[in-house]
Amino acid sequence: MITSISNPRMKEIVQMQKRGRARNQAGLFIVEGLRMVREVPPERLAQLYVTEEFYEKHKQEPIFAAGKEFVSAQVFEYISDTKTPQGILAAVRQYAFSEEEVIGGKGMPLAQAKKRPAHILVLDNLQDPGNLGTMFRTAEAAGATGIIMSRDCVDIYNPKAIRSTMGAVFRMPFAYADSLLRTIENLKKAGNHVYAAHLEGNRAYDQEDYREGTAFLIGNEGNGLRREVAQCADTWIQIPMAGQAESLNAAVAAAILMFEVSRQRRFPGKFRKDT
Amino acid sequence: MITSISNPRMKEIVQMQKRGRARNQAGLFIVEGLRMVREVPPERLAQLYVTEEFYEKHKQEPIFAAGKEFVSAQVFEYISDTKTPQGILAAVRQYAFSEEEVIGGKGMPLAQAKKRPAHILVLDNLQDPGNLGTMFRTAEAAGATGIIMSRDCVDIYNPKAIRSTMGAVFRMPFAYADSLLRTIENLKKAGNHVYAAHLEGNRAYDQEDYREGTAFLIGNEGNGLRREVAQCADTWIQIPMAGQAESLNAAVAAAILMFEVSRQRRFPGKFRKDT
Repeated sequence: MITSISNPRMKEIVQMQKRGRARNQAGLFIVEGLRMVREVPPERLAQLYVTEEFYEKHKQEPIFAAGKEFVSAQVFEYISDTKTPQGILAAVRQYAFSEEEVIGGKGMPLAQAKKRPAHILVLDNLQDPGNLGTMFRTAEAAGATGIIMSRDCVDIYNPKAIRSTMGAVFRMPFAYADSLLRTIENLKKAGNHVYAAHLEGNRAYDQEDYREGTAFLIGNEGNGLRREVAQCADTWIQIPMAGQAESLNAAVAAAILMFEVSRQRRFPGKFRKDT
Repeated sequence: MITSISNPRMKEIVQMQKRGRARNQAGLFIVEGLRMVREVPPERLAQLYVTEEFYEKHKQEPIFAAGKEFVSAQVFEYISDTKTPQGILAAVRQYAFSEEEVIGGKGMPLAQAKKRPAHILVLDNLQDPGNLGTMFRTAEAAGATGIIMSRDCVDIYNPKAIRSTMGAVFRMPFAYADSLLRTIENLKKAGNHVYAAHLEGNRAYDQEDYREGTAFLIGNEGNGLRREVAQCADTWIQIPMAGQAESLNAAVAAAILMFEVSRQRRFPGKFRKDT
């Protein structure tokens, strides 16, 4: 049982909760809570910490099969990022696909992956961890095939981002791109149509045909897409808005676009424009 | 110029930043930042505080026409709820419509209000302030006509909720309901169809006709709708999901439903089911 907050591994956990650099050096990230720990693929579980109290209540959980380490309740509070810690926390190995894998659908864990046309979210300088995590969660539910992020996006391994994914971080293939301009080129070469979500888009999002390979470029919360990125898209689309609303939350905008793809692909024979 | 954090009004501002009770006793709430303060309807502005530095940069802003009070940079940091305060903060009078007004579309600030069929969001025990604020923002953009909240929802005047509305809190009519069961009855009496967003819904959300009066019941983030509330709905709908995703973020689910309404009403002659 670890009972001291000066234990070096506990200090490392705290560093990983706070800093992307510490996470990247260790090649790990932290997940908390029973629901999230249950989603960790066994081969990626590096360390598992529990309080005695938590273990007593949940000892039958299969997640304990590969071992665990006890920490005192006091130490657990120290290493936890949440206000009311449950008493279970894991250090998990990071894993990102290559851009080629994501574009090719190789990262898809599902059997039908190869039969599914690409449906990819490309994120340019996204900054809010809650938004990023929510996009992962929504992307999985909408049947998206992958997410590609510019390197200056907020870290998906940030604890708040991880929590917001609700486990989709383990199932949604994702990659980092050094240059989104090259990413867009690669997406087009692979036969995908690239749409920029843009307030100045001249097409309504629901008047486009997303049944074949589709990628959406989504920009920063405050500033939208960088000009040079948006300019590489095939088509600029917008979501028609009422009232005096100037824009939508980025995760909301992404959700509306991805579920329009989902809608069209559920009834592929029936697509027609309304205008 | 207020230079002391023991100034009673500064203490009251801090209390209002932290506690719903303090806000309700004063009948006020706090908004921060130039963008949000600009959105405050003049008749609802109660107090306006700025730093000298902020004022020097923005003195031509029309918001200063009705007066302002200077506070020192140090005091401003004390009263601000944000990490990097801009230097402008207002205390604003609270205002909620009655449930009848929201159902009747009377609260709508827009000229076309009476011509628009109702499109109402009913929120049951929503707990996340960011989600609530985002729903207000999305509702305005989707052309919704109002929001009705159970009294145990998180306070819309919570600073994080207010920020997430991006100003829609001033434009989207909303009301509190003592009993959602009665609310649902009133919605039906007024000719609206009431849909429960439910994981066990037996209809896909995009196969229903929302061109006439429509209300959506949205439940708590973790537990969904209370049984007795969901049971009062006319129809249970769900958003079809792929992968292992168990649910969507509540604000995302509400956005997908509201923008389906928006989509159908933009092309009212063309609705048809896909199945």
